Amino acid sequence: MENKVFMSFAFYSTILILKMYVVAIITGQVRLRKKAFANPEDALRNGGLQYYREDPDVERCRRAHRNDMENIFPFLFLGAIYSLLDPSPAVARIHFFIFCVGRIVHTIAYLLRLKAPTRSVAYSVAQLPCFSMALQILLATTPYW
Amino acid sequence: MENKVFMSFAFYSTILILKMYVVAIITGQVRLRKKAFANPEDALRNGGLQYYREDPDVERCRRAHRNDMENIFPFLFLGAIYSLLDPSPAVARIHFFIFCVGRIVHTIAYLLRLKAPTRSVAYSVAQLPCFSMALQILLATTPYW
Amino acid sequence: MENKVFMSFAFYSTILILKMYVVAIITGQVRLRKKAFANPEDALRNGGLQYYREDPDVERCRRAHRNDMENIFPFLFLGAIYSLLDPSPAVARIHFFIFCVGRIVHTIAYLLRLKAPTRSVAYSVAQLPCFSMALQILLATTPYW
Repeated sequence: MENKVFMSFAFYSTILILKMYVVAIITGQVRLRKKAFANPEDALRNGGLQYYREDPDVERCRRAHRNDMENIFPFLFLGAIYSLLDPSPAVARIHFFIFCVGRIVHTIAYLLRLKAPTRSVAYSVAQLPCFSMALQILLATTPYW
Repeated sequence: MENKVFMSFAFYSTILILKMYVVAIITGQVRLRKKAFANPEDALRNGGLQYYREDPDVERCRRAHRNDMENIFPFLFLGAIYSLLDPSPAVARIHFFIFCVGRIVHTIAYLLRLKAPTRSVAYSVAQLPCFSMALQILLATTPYW
Repeated sequence: MENKVFMSFAFYSTILILKMYVVAIITGQVRLRKKAFANPEDALRNGGLQYYREDPDVERCRRAHRNDMENIFPFLFLGAIYSLLDPSPAVARIHFFIFCVGRIVHTIAYLLRLKAPTRSVAYSVAQLPCFSMALQILLATTPYW
């Protein structure tokens, strides 16, 4: 853990994982407030089987969470490998920072229903450092394929 | 691989990944037994297009699997970084053990429809070591943000 | 990064993450072409609220993507730990190669609706190296549980 780039990567990654946990907590709160449960046993405990149902606000939270899984989890991998390739600390930090801000804006745009294309712009901006890291990893590892 | 904490982490993580594979296998078995397939081409091979349909038991398996992805995958990251921060081996093992047991109980509660709030209690207990590890990582890495 | 097995693992993993990004891009293209959006705000920007709807082709892309998350993400973990266990480079490379080809065939079979059981055979073949790596990790780490 004497690799400063890796420490910086670990910081931003952990912030994003906590952000995902917040989305999970919000989903649970929306389920309780809108009375819309994914399982009959949950509905029974919260007023009756009629609350075993879908709700558009819950589905929105779940889409935000799923999009996080599709994009933040690959970042956790790419960022770790990239950090081990001895990149410039300043350039690496820019990669992590852009991704982190892009994904936080993505979540806010999703949950607050911000006007399109705010959310997709945030998604695309966050993908730029990912593509950059992926290409740098390929350049470094292709001799070992 | 001379880090004993990391070896312990790798053990519990691999158990949980195998547990996820078991959920995937169960999902496939339920699809065959209930004749409910996600794709027309699968239904055609198993009796006809009428079996291209949803089924509540299949959906339950899929929710269990998705919840695993939402929670076990972040653990794979947090636990790896935490293991590198030189924690007390005994304390670290307690973190991994609680998470592992919590997630196994969560899956059993989900698939066997155990009465609420068994499943959510298991989920919450398993989140405790995750929050603890996340906070310890932030404490160690904040100087490098 | 002087571990050649790990470099080979990083290469195949990054190829598969890029493959997943391609599935995401295809999903977006199918949404635009079929005019089927997951959010009202996206539909409003693309012709009207009537396009806030599901579409079987979009759902197929999403199933392919989800199956990737269920299987490629665990590989990213198992492969990394396995690489650190000092395996035979030739044997390790066969593990990574089979998984990579299996998952690429899986995606092609999914998106092009290839006749069953092409897709499930590709899935099963790709799981073989994962089970093999998981067992080898357990063998090496069980003393540390």
